[in-house]
Amino acid sequence: MNPTITAFERSPDRGRGLARDMRVRWALEEVKQPYDVRLVSFKEMKEAAHRQRHPFGQIPTYEEGDLTLFESGAIIFHIAERHAGLLPEDANARARAIAWMFAALNTVEPPIVERSMAILLERDKSWFEERRAMLDDRVRVRLGELSSRLGRADWLDGAFSAGDLLMVTVLRRLDGSGEVEKFPNLSAYVARGEARPAYQRAFAAQLAVFTGKPPTS
Amino acid sequence: MNPTITAFERSPDRGRGLARDMRVRWALEEVKQPYDVRLVSFKEMKEAAHRQRHPFGQIPTYEEGDLTLFESGAIIFHIAERHAGLLPEDANARARAIAWMFAALNTVEPPIVERSMAILLERDKSWFEERRAMLDDRVRVRLGELSSRLGRADWLDGAFSAGDLLMVTVLRRLDGSGEVEKFPNLSAYVARGEARPAYQRAFAAQLAVFTGKPPTS
Repeated sequence: MNPTITAFERSPDRGRGLARDMRVRWALEEVKQPYDVRLVSFKEMKEAAHRQRHPFGQIPTYEEGDLTLFESGAIIFHIAERHAGLLPEDANARARAIAWMFAALNTVEPPIVERSMAILLERDKSWFEERRAMLDDRVRVRLGELSSRLGRADWLDGAFSAGDLLMVTVLRRLDGSGEVEKFPNLSAYVARGEARPAYQRAFAAQLAVFTGKPPTS
Repeated sequence: MNPTITAFERSPDRGRGLARDMRVRWALEEVKQPYDVRLVSFKEMKEAAHRQRHPFGQIPTYEEGDLTLFESGAIIFHIAERHAGLLPEDANARARAIAWMFAALNTVEPPIVERSMAILLERDKSWFEERRAMLDDRVRVRLGELSSRLGRADWLDGAFSAGDLLMVTVLRRLDGSGEVEKFPNLSAYVARGEARPAYQRAFAAQLAVFTGKPPTS
């Protein structure tokens, strides 16, 4: 039986692939694992049935037989442990790829989310412009550090891994801001991720939820 | 040879155990793995030699033979994979404990860090009080959800795991704010973590760096 993931019934990003189900779809496509999707409304997400799956009332979740998981990082790690293609076999390289998974989620994503939340929730506040400059600076510092480490490499540490998958999706949250484009090697890195056939299948599948049309492929 | 971790030469929390090396020390104590510590100054953290270990110029890092890791979550996962005591053996229970590791770092910690950063960096701004109320609300929502899920249990999912270790250290970052105390089961949960002998050894070791006196045990 296929695993079942949850995704927004109506994605607030209008199908731009910025919601966190995109990460899980992409990982499943990389390892060629078919999956089912249960769409949830904002109301359902906060109700007891969904909170049983996800204590914080968010998406995505992952159900497979007796197992229910939440947190996109944990779901992707679970997939990566069970299927080849997302983590290297060499033990040290594997540990470093896992470090990039945590770095994407715990070091790079928080200032990016904070910036998005300020734009969403504080746009009408008197302090918005001043604070936004602070937040932009914080994001730029992180991107600069990431850019320095990536250098001329294709991926963060050797071959493409779950660490790159998460980092690319985290950087994509800046889509339209022009911030990633200030670092040409990071722009190229994101484009390299987006060019992967598994990414494209995942993107088409999440877009189809929004447009109501099945993916053409 | 013992692994070597890095920690602040002078911890900004004055030895209250809120810096991220505390998590790694605690994990190593839980599995009874001796370790060495290299102290780094704020200046050294941003220099090339340390950035080679940690691309974002932070602590902790972890070195063991040929392997260098950064990100406290990844380091703790590495320790937990190689030693018994931090992750359950049952595959599904293990996957759920890993989900709690990611939840602590990616869902619960970011609003807590954001609140601390506002207190540190925005205290003199005209907007501080209004924004602080927003940030307190965000933290309370997360704590309320966590409290509901924990209920009357001792730990988040069965036996104590690396997920609890990370969650307790994340909640401890609210030390002194009175926020955790609004949820008596979360207060008791943190106290339960702090009462573990491994926690106490780790706490004494990081405090000794600040006081300059060796831990008395």
